[in-house]
Amino acid sequence: MAVLKVHGAVLSTASMRVFACLYEKDLDFQFVPIDMKAGQHKSETFLSLNPFGQIPAVEVGDQKLFESRAITQYIAEEYADKGTQLTCPGKPLAPLFVWKEVEAHQFDPVASKLIWELVYKPMHGTTTDPAVVEENEAKLGKVLDIYEARLAQSKYLACDCFTLADMHHLPSLHYLMGTPVNKLFDSRPHVSAWAANISSRPAWSKVVAMQKQ
Amino acid sequence: MAVLKVHGAVLSTASMRVFACLYEKDLDFQFVPIDMKAGQHKSETFLSLNPFGQIPAVEVGDQKLFESRAITQYIAEEYADKGTQLTCPGKPLAPLFVWKEVEAHQFDPVASKLIWELVYKPMHGTTTDPAVVEENEAKLGKVLDIYEARLAQSKYLACDCFTLADMHHLPSLHYLMGTPVNKLFDSRPHVSAWAANISSRPAWSKVVAMQKQ
Repeated sequence: MAVLKVHGAVLSTASMRVFACLYEKDLDFQFVPIDMKAGQHKSETFLSLNPFGQIPAVEVGDQKLFESRAITQYIAEEYADKGTQLTCPGKPLAPLFVWKEVEAHQFDPVASKLIWELVYKPMHGTTTDPAVVEENEAKLGKVLDIYEARLAQSKYLACDCFTLADMHHLPSLHYLMGTPVNKLFDSRPHVSAWAANISSRPAWSKVVAMQKQ
Repeated sequence: MAVLKVHGAVLSTASMRVFACLYEKDLDFQFVPIDMKAGQHKSETFLSLNPFGQIPAVEVGDQKLFESRAITQYIAEEYADKGTQLTCPGKPLAPLFVWKEVEAHQFDPVASKLIWELVYKPMHGTTTDPAVVEENEAKLGKVLDIYEARLAQSKYLACDCFTLADMHHLPSLHYLMGTPVNKLFDSRPHVSAWAANISSRPAWSKVVAMQKQ
């Protein structure tokens, strides 16, 4: 089997999404750390992997992939017979498609703004903007009300098993659960149980462990 | 075959994306216009179709779908044997996944801001913000430089045939090509040829014709 190389960073949510997928699929991979502070993601070498200059980028054989959700979909389909299934075999197609898009277009834009303000800014010694936090907390609350209703009917977002739709949330959940925004998860019992459940997966523990090395 | 109902609006880019897919697939559908000025997308009836209160929403049999790109993926897979293929059969999986995500995360956020300023604001009698236009024109130019390089190698974004990755761009291309931003397409020969080619598809003409009824 061709060696799978991931060019990324252990603290980047998009890279973490790809690591989670690889561990769920029980696939060996080679991690190539990209030093973003040194601007390595804008180097000619990196731009030949991803012309948009964003991590992660993946090489497998002569294929080059970028965009974290494209990479996870590729891994889920190409290695369908390895590790966790990550799709809903034998179930209607629609819910997985819908909830993957909900993560990308409803949850992630709001979660990313909160992580920027509450995690990355403090990490880099710059000042959090309380107005941006307040606005996006209110938006996230509304999104999570809809998740609460969905998760009251279904153990996981797309069907009765863990899929890409759940997995794609893990990096943002991980960061937000370590901030005061955690109250938004805590106060919604089904969201809270779902977040605790998917965060306790062994594959996810391995992603978190990468940050501690 | 179950009746396919599309709740949407003829001027909405997300609805146009779904109409384009249905015409490419040569599928009959029932169009249910949603009056957004009257707030119909926030009505209890509509929220039972899409709890996020955004158009379009699709009903087919007892399935309810929302998020335009989830709907097009569903249609492409569920009706794989009808009309245009919209995928790259027999080709590597990765490029279609990658270029679909590029549209959603690189092209669309910038294009949407420009359409808001240059199309929807004038349509509703409010004032365009030239600073937002300038900033996003510069961003779109950089994105289109990468498209130009890709389209110099490949007739379409994902492979040598028209796919969802191309099709998802059509609504934004249509609006932007009617504004001064068109110069960004015109000045890049491969982007310009691609945009003209995909805009001339009979299925797309039917979407544009819906706006003139």
